[in-house]
Parts: sequence; structure tokens; C-alpha cells
Amino acid sequence: MLLEVSCALSELPVKTSIRAARYHGNKDVRVEDLPMPTLKPGTALVEIEWCGICGSDLHEYVAGPLGGPIPTDDRPHPLTGEWLPVVLGHEACGVIKSSNKGSRFKPGQRVVINPRLNCKQCVPCTTGHEHQCPQLGFLGYSGIGGGFSEVVPVGEESLYPIPGNVHFECAALVEPLAVAHHAIKATGVEDFSSKTVLVTGCGPVGVAVILGLKSFGAKRIIVSEPATARRQQTEDMVEAALDPTAEDIGRRCRELTDGRGIDVAFDCAGVQRGVQPALEALANDGIWMNVSIWEMPILLTFWPFMLKELKVMTSACYTDEDFREVVERLGQEKYPGYERMVTGRICLDDIVPKGFKALIENKDTHIKIFVTPKKSNLG
Amino acid sequence: MLLEVSCALSELPVKTSIRAARYHGNKDVRVEDLPMPTLKPGTALVEIEWCGICGSDLHEYVAGPLGGPIPTDDRPHPLTGEWLPVVLGHEACGVIKSSNKGSRFKPGQRVVINPRLNCKQCVPCTTGHEHQCPQLGFLGYSGIGGGFSEVVPVGEESLYPIPGNVHFECAALVEPLAVAHHAIKATGVEDFSSKTVLVTGCGPVGVAVILGLKSFGAKRIIVSEPATARRQQTEDMVEAALDPTAEDIGRRCRELTDGRGIDVAFDCAGVQRGVQPALEALANDGIWMNVSIWEMPILLTFWPFMLKELKVMTSACYTDEDFREVVERLGQEKYPGYERMVTGRICLDDIVPKGFKALIENKDTHIKIFVTPKKSNLG
Repeated sequence: MLLEVSCALSELPVKTSIRAARYHGNKDVRVEDLPMPTLKPGTALVEIEWCGICGSDLHEYVAGPLGGPIPTDDRPHPLTGEWLPVVLGHEACGVIKSSNKGSRFKPGQRVVINPRLNCKQCVPCTTGHEHQCPQLGFLGYSGIGGGFSEVVPVGEESLYPIPGNVHFECAALVEPLAVAHHAIKATGVEDFSSKTVLVTGCGPVGVAVILGLKSFGAKRIIVSEPATARRQQTEDMVEAALDPTAEDIGRRCRELTDGRGIDVAFDCAGVQRGVQPALEALANDGIWMNVSIWEMPILLTFWPFMLKELKVMTSACYTDEDFREVVERLGQEKYPGYERMVTGRICLDDIVPKGFKALIENKDTHIKIFVTPKKSNLG
Repeated sequence: MLLEVSCALSELPVKTSIRAARYHGNKDVRVEDLPMPTLKPGTALVEIEWCGICGSDLHEYVAGPLGGPIPTDDRPHPLTGEWLPVVLGHEACGVIKSSNKGSRFKPGQRVVINPRLNCKQCVPCTTGHEHQCPQLGFLGYSGIGGGFSEVVPVGEESLYPIPGNVHFECAALVEPLAVAHHAIKATGVEDFSSKTVLVTGCGPVGVAVILGLKSFGAKRIIVSEPATARRQQTEDMVEAALDPTAEDIGRRCRELTDGRGIDVAFDCAGVQRGVQPALEALANDGIWMNVSIWEMPILLTFWPFMLKELKVMTSACYTDEDFREVVERLGQEKYPGYERMVTGRICLDDIVPKGFKALIENKDTHIKIFVTPKKSNLG
């Protein structure tokens, strides 16, 4: 009987193509048939289980190509050498489909992908600042092939085993949690348990920052978010969820902190109208940390910045260490409730209408939509 | 004979009025006769020798009253309770004219005045951050009476003896040097000897920052200054004096640092066109420190700020400790060449035409003009 099955399997036609969603340019994402990737030295092929749609994917869809890490028709990405179109998706997890002989990864093993690409040769790359590489790119953004696909070839150094107790259908949250983790560490604050924190903007980045802050022991988190649905999504996680269209954020934050003000404000909104209220909310020597991608220059209102000697900082993605630490913390169950970040699960074929368009049209009710190429994952 | 002289002195009429330059409002500074200040408990009367004209004095003259620490006709300063007009001058030194019984200051003693006023009751004031007091004011700006005057009443805690080896006619430079000293310390950089520094703007603040940096051991200072005269004034103090109207500051700074970029950039210009070149000049994790008063919000170009994870910081005047440390450093001769900051010495009666107007009309050739109420000081 077993022999018969083996024979039958060997007679199955070898799959030579995969389905993948490619970004061709502004508002042009197509689910297409592409050749099956081949296994090269140092890489493994990963069958994708889930991949999250990121705000930057949406941003490129609506306003791109923006000439950042995503290549354009006339400018290939310096690290991948690839041009448009590219397969999107840089928040992905899956199982090893095949690996090279001697690899530490075995077929069937559950892995999450660190999508960051860097040149490995420049000063930042060789001094532990690989996240600041001037040629920074992302698998699923800059070429190679991203997670909105059935199979992706990934360098083994970018693969991290998923701890056994981590829900598979949420493991792709490591990437956004790593963005938050890096920003929280980049503040230089050693102990968040005694600090008051303001999070401006409660989209996916804001929620990841709240989860991250709690994993660092933060107890007093205040959020500022104009959308009612988004405020409600975080209300049970924070001390106060304020509406900046109805309340004076600076005054309310001082009231909530006995007049002192906020120690650290995280900008997870990336819009100018969020800046001045946060600067006003901050205490003397307070830190304003940006975790957003801005389309415009950031305008700093001079007087609160100067009189309180505020520190204006920013974070840029994450290091390998950050990524590893987040995988560990997930295994240690340090992000209770992280599953709530996934507010939709859809099939790859539906990525445009039920993914990109749904997020654009209903952005306030969704946090993150996960995409799977395996219809069986949708039950 | 001695007796005769004593008699003669005692018969001299007691001086009941003083000459002082008062700010009445926009482009309205008048040298007037005012009543002689009286000695109150806790204060000493100081006969002013020299007082420097500060950029903020000029700023109020040209564009004020700006509603900052200087009061207006309808809003007294919260600490002094005074309204316009006020006697200007907050960079002053002099000799004790009279002091209270038991005072540590004796008539004839040379002193420099720390002009900063703060409420002494708020959280910043009671936690060693008196320079961040929300009611911050300045003697010679917010009321009480400043150094463009024959005699000033000063709280004893604001008086610092001038070390014997410090040239009297330059001792009033302590205040601008304290501004620079504070900003340099506020970067948090522990050892400047291995750092490369960019100073944008070589007016009085820029020169004070250069002198301060050298006192902290900085060896590699690059300046960016469009005015030829100002560049020439600093050329012998720095590694390179660049002209931002003729050179790409970012590119040149990278060339001068083997491609690495600048560690710390000090903004001593307070104008938007100086910001982006400095951000481009900075190395990864570099610090941009503002030492200027800005009329406009500061616009941060997003990409260099984000990709290099720059830290954008600012300083606000100085603490008592900063002021004391600068007096000590002057005594220790840690500011060689500081005398060059004084490019003009004039009489109080000439303060408008030869002081304010001269600085406005010939701003590039002057660094700082010192004013004395004692004609004998002008030789």
C-alpha cells in the first residue's frame, strides 16, 4: 500500500509554475503565473503560508513607484539588479519546501522570513548597523520575490524557525513587530516600566508599538487616534485612547501625568497634524520617536522643541538581532493578544479586491490583512 | 591733603540717576536717564564695565517685540512683573559698587552676571533643569535692568567672580560661551577628540561653539558659512571653512571624513537652507544640535533623517553649572583666542548708531560689539 502511494506520487506532474502577485506600477498589481523558483546554493525554497499586506505595499500601490527600495522601470534595485514588475510581500512565513544538502533547514520546517536586504560590505553593514545600509532593500519589495506567492527562494541567513507555541497564522507578524521593537530600543530608554508613553496613530504600526512597549514593561500608554474604530481596537490595551479631533492632546497628556508630560512619544501616523500635539504633550527632555514613512518633510514647531530640549529621533526598520529577539519574545508569549493585529485573511487570488482595495476603503476597521496562496488555509 | 580730598569727595553730589538703553519696541531703543537702583536684601549693585550686544537683542530690535522672554505693552513678564520698556543687555560684567552687610561680594570686586531668571519652584527648576523653566527670563531682557546701563541690581546668586587672569574687557563673553558650552554638553558626546564636527553659521554663536568645542578637545572642526569675512575669521581655528553657496556641503564633508560623514553638526545659523546640507553631511547615527533661535518651524528632510537614524536635538540657554564651568575654563585659559569675538567696543550713548545699526549693516565683518557706560574704558 505504501509502495503504491509512492508510485502514485512520483507520477504526479512536477509543478513548474507558481501563482504570485506582482507590482507593475501605480494601482497595477496582477496575480500571475511565474516559473517555479530553483534552489540555489545558500538558499532554501519556502512554501508561503501567510503574508501580511504592509502599509508600504499600499503606499506603493496608491502613490508609487516612489523610487525608494522598490525598483522602477528605468532604475533597477542596486542589490537585486531587478526591475519592475516585482512580487510584493515582505511579511511572510511558510514551510521549507526544499533545502540544500547539509542545510540546517529541513523540508516541512516552519519558518519566518526576515526580508531585509543589505549590501554586507559598507561601513554600516560591517559594524552591526545593517539596517542603515544605503542600498537597503526588501525581499518582496526590491526584487527576488516576495511572500504574495506560492514559493519564494530565500537566503538561509534570512530564515528563522518559528517557535512551536506560536500560531502559524500569525507568525508573519514578526516583521511589523520587529519594526516596533527596533524603534522602542532606539529610544535608548532602559526601563519603560516607569515611563509614560504617547502613541500617535493606531494603525498596524501603532498597534505593533503598543504590543512592543508592553513587552518592554510599559504600563502607562496613551494613544491619540482620530478614527473611532481604531481607538476602540486599542482601548483595552492602554491607559487612555484620546481623540485628537475632540481633545487637546498636550493638555490631556499633562493632566494624565500630574502636569509633567509624556516621556516618550512614538509617531505611528506620519502626518504633520500629529506632530505639534505630541511635542506639546512631551515633558522636558522628552523623546519624539518616528516609526512612520513620511511623504513630506517633518515640520518641527520650534518653541516646544527648544524650550523643553526635546530629542527628535527616528528608526529605520530593524537589525538581525531585533528580528531574532522578536521571534524569541513571540515564543516567550510576551505579546499577549498579538493575534488581534490580523483582522482579515484572504486568498492570494483576491489580493487586489479583498486586500489592497479593502484596506484602502475600510482602513479604519482593519489593522492588517493576511494573504495565503493555500486555499486550504481559509478552512 | 588726604583730609581735604575726603572732604571734597563727601561734598560731591550723590549720583541719583543713571544712563541706560531701554527697549521701547520695534526699532525703538533710547538711551535715557533713569533713577539710581537701590540696594535690596540679597542683591548687590554692579557698576557695568562691558556688556555685549547679543543676536537676540538685535532680533527684538528688528522684528520684536516677539512675545518671548521680553515683555510687551500688554503682557508683563511672569517673573519680573515688568512691562516695556526694559533696559536691554544680558551679557554683562562689572565691579561691585555696593553690597549688603555680610555679603561675599565686596565693593570693587570684578564680577560677571548670569542673567538667566527662573521661577525656582517648578519641576525643572527643582530638579537641576532650571534652564528649562517654562517662565524662563533674562535680566536685561525680561525686566529688572540689563547691562546697557551704568548700574544694575543683581541677585548675589547670579554673580560670579572673574578669575584674575581673565581680561576684564572680554569677561562678558561668559554668557555666549555658556550657551555654546551647554549645547556641546547636551549632545551627550563624552569625547570630542575623536569626533568630526560641522558648525553651520559662523556668527557669534558659531564662533562660541568653535571655541567651546576646542575646550572640549575637538580636533576636527569643519565650518559652513556663506559670508567670506566670517569664513576668514574662523579659518585658522578649523580644519576647513566651506562656502555652502559654492560647495556641496554633504559631499565635501564625506570627502573630508573618508566617506564616513560628520559625527555632530551644530546649527548656529537658524535658517532653513542650512539644515538639509547638514543632514546630508552627517554620518549614520549622527547628531544635529540646534543652538539657534528660529523664527520659523524647522523642516526636516525625511530620507537622510530616517535612513541614517539621525538624532535631532536642541539646547536652551544654560544651567548655573554651565555658567560656572565656563568662568572656570576662562580662568584655566581653555579658550585661547576668545578675545577675537569682540570686534568692536563702543560707548553706551552710541549704542543705536554704532551698535545695533552697525551690526545690522555690517553683520558679516562683526562678531560681537561690546558696550560700556564708562567713556574712560575706551582709552
